[in-house]
Amino acid sequence: MLRLFLAVDAGGTSTRCVAVDEYGGCHGYGRSASGNPISAGPALAARSVAEAAGQALRQANAAGGESGPRVASVLLAMAGASALSGTELFAAELAPLGVSAPVAFAPDLLATFCSGTWRLDGYALVAGTGATAVRVEGGEVACTADGLGWLLGDEGSGFWIGERVARAAVTDLDRRGPQTALTELLLAELGLTADDTLYQGRPAVLQHLVETLYALRPVQLAQFARLAFDAARAGDAVAARIVRDAADALAHTLATVDDAQVDGPVVLGGGTVAQHDELVARIGDARTSGGLPREVRVVADGVVGAAVIALRQASVAVDEQVFARIVDTLATLR
Amino acid sequence: MLRLFLAVDAGGTSTRCVAVDEYGGCHGYGRSASGNPISAGPALAARSVAEAAGQALRQANAAGGESGPRVASVLLAMAGASALSGTELFAAELAPLGVSAPVAFAPDLLATFCSGTWRLDGYALVAGTGATAVRVEGGEVACTADGLGWLLGDEGSGFWIGERVARAAVTDLDRRGPQTALTELLLAELGLTADDTLYQGRPAVLQHLVETLYALRPVQLAQFARLAFDAARAGDAVAARIVRDAADALAHTLATVDDAQVDGPVVLGGGTVAQHDELVARIGDARTSGGLPREVRVVADGVVGAAVIALRQASVAVDEQVFARIVDTLATLR
Repeated sequence: MLRLFLAVDAGGTSTRCVAVDEYGGCHGYGRSASGNPISAGPALAARSVAEAAGQALRQANAAGGESGPRVASVLLAMAGASALSGTELFAAELAPLGVSAPVAFAPDLLATFCSGTWRLDGYALVAGTGATAVRVEGGEVACTADGLGWLLGDEGSGFWIGERVARAAVTDLDRRGPQTALTELLLAELGLTADDTLYQGRPAVLQHLVETLYALRPVQLAQFARLAFDAARAGDAVAARIVRDAADALAHTLATVDDAQVDGPVVLGGGTVAQHDELVARIGDARTSGGLPREVRVVADGVVGAAVIALRQASVAVDEQVFARIVDTLATLR
Repeated sequence: MLRLFLAVDAGGTSTRCVAVDEYGGCHGYGRSASGNPISAGPALAARSVAEAAGQALRQANAAGGESGPRVASVLLAMAGASALSGTELFAAELAPLGVSAPVAFAPDLLATFCSGTWRLDGYALVAGTGATAVRVEGGEVACTADGLGWLLGDEGSGFWIGERVARAAVTDLDRRGPQTALTELLLAELGLTADDTLYQGRPAVLQHLVETLYALRPVQLAQFARLAFDAARAGDAVAARIVRDAADALAHTLATVDDAQVDGPVVLGGGTVAQHDELVARIGDARTSGGLPREVRVVADGVVGAAVIALRQASVAVDEQVFARIVDTLATLR
C-alpha cells in the first residue's frame, strides 16, 4: 500500500497541500484559503488546511485506486508556528478525511528555503506583506532577521512599500512632498477624484483620501505596493526611490543573517519579491564570502519545501534526484 | 452685572476653561480630563468641558459676589472641530450650570496661535502626539499642513519620534541597526531585562519587547518620544539623529504654510515642542521673507487663545493691552 505524506504550506492568503510519497512522487494537490491561525483564526485555519488536504487526498486516491493510500504523517509549514498552542485542532479537522497520522509544524521560512534547494545550508528571504530572512544550517533555521511586523519591522515588505505609497500621495496633496504619479494611481485605486476644490488651503480630496485610508486596517496598505512597482517602471522618481529603498532594506536584512562560514543558495519568496526584478538581480549579483557567484532561486510558495521537510522528518534523504522528482511531479498536478 | 465668556481649550489629554470678561480680565479657571470628542468620545468630552467650566464659574462667582456673573457665550477650541456634528451635547451638559449661552467651535491650532499673540497674521506649529502647522490671516486659519495622523502623517510628532525609538531598539536587538542607548532605556521603561539567552540567533528579549509593543495601541508609542530627547542629551548618536530628523520634519511642515506676503509671529505649542530646544532655536534663527528675525513664542496650551477668539467673536477688539490683561490675570488663577 502506498505510504503518503501530507505536506501543507499554510499562508496568510492561501494554503497549498501536496500528497507526496517517500520517493518524492506527488500524487495529489489541493489549494484553499488562509491556513494561518494568526491571520485567519485557529478554527478557519484548521478548516482551510483540511480542505486543501481533502483535495490532495481525493486526487491521490483516484490515482492510487480502490484500496487507497495511507497517510503516514502531516507537516504544516506556517509563520509563527512555534508560538502556537498545539496541533490538536488541525488533527481534529483532518480526522474525518481518515487521516489519523501525527501532525508536526515547521517554520514557513524553512519551507521557502527547501522549496528552492535540496541542500541543507543556505539562506532564504521572504517578502510578502511582511519581510523576514533566515540562515539555514543542517536543514534547520539557525538565525532569523526581521519579520517583526508592520509597526516595528518588516522593512522593505509589501506593507512597508504600501505605507510609503500612501504617504507619498498624502504629502504630495499636502504640498509637503514632491509631485508623483502615485497620487493619481492611489486616488483611482480608491475611486476618488481630485478637483480644484480647496479646504484650508489644500485639496479637499486629501481629507477624503485620509479618511478612506484610516478606514482600512493598517496592514491593508500592503495592497498599494503594486502601485510603486507600476509607477517606478513608468519612470516616476518618487516610486523608483521607494522601490530602491525597499531593495536596500531587504538586502540589508538578508546580509544580517549572512555568515562567511555558511555557503549555500539564496532562496527568495513572497509576493513582493516576485514583483521586484531589481532586488532579485541585485542579490544575484552579490558574491559569496568565497567570491563565487551566489546561486539564487525564486520560488512561488513553500509547498515543495513542506514536502521536503515532511520526507526528512520521516528519515528520507532528500537529495538532488528526490528534490527534482518532487518539483517535476508536482508541476503535473497544478 | 458682569458679562463673562467661557473659553475652553479641549485637548486630547486635558481640558482647560477660563471665564473672561470683555476687557480681558480672567475671573475663574478650571481644568479637567480630555474634552476632545475624537479621543474621549462625545459624551465624556462634553462632561469634561462642563467640569472645567463648572470650576471656572464657581471661582468667578466667588470673586463676583452673590448676584453672580452672566455667561454671554461659550467658545470650544478643539481639534477636528469642523468634522463634529454639533454643539448640542456640550450645551446640554452646560445647562445645569445655568449656562444657556450660544456655543461655538474654533480650531485648536487657531487657539494655539492666539495664545501667543494678539496679532491677526502669523503662523502656528503644534507638535504633541500629532503635528500640524497653520498660517493665520485676518484671525482665521488660511492654510494647514500635515496633522494627518500617526499612520499617514504627523511627521516629527511625538508618535513619529516614539515609533522611531521603538524601531531603533528593535533593530539594535535584531542586529540590523546600530547599538543605541535607546534599547536599554526602552527595555527599562517596559520592565524588561536583556540577558544572554538567544532564540533563533537573536536575543530572546526581542520577542518579549515586540509582543509588549504590539499590545499597545499604536498611538501610545508617543510615550517613548521622551527617551529620544533624554538619550540625545546624553550623547547617543541614534537618538540625536531621530531628534534632528524630527526637527527637520517639523521645520518643513512649518515652511509649507509659509507665505512671503504674510508676516507675523510663529507660535509653537504641544508637549513635543516643549522638549525640543533644538527645534525652538532653529525656528527662532530662521528669518522672515523680509530678512528680519522671526518673533517666536512658545505657549503651554490654547486657553489664552480660546479667550482671545471668544472675545473677538463678541466683537471685542483684542489688542496688545487686552491680550496682556488676559495673560496676566489668568496667571494669577492657575
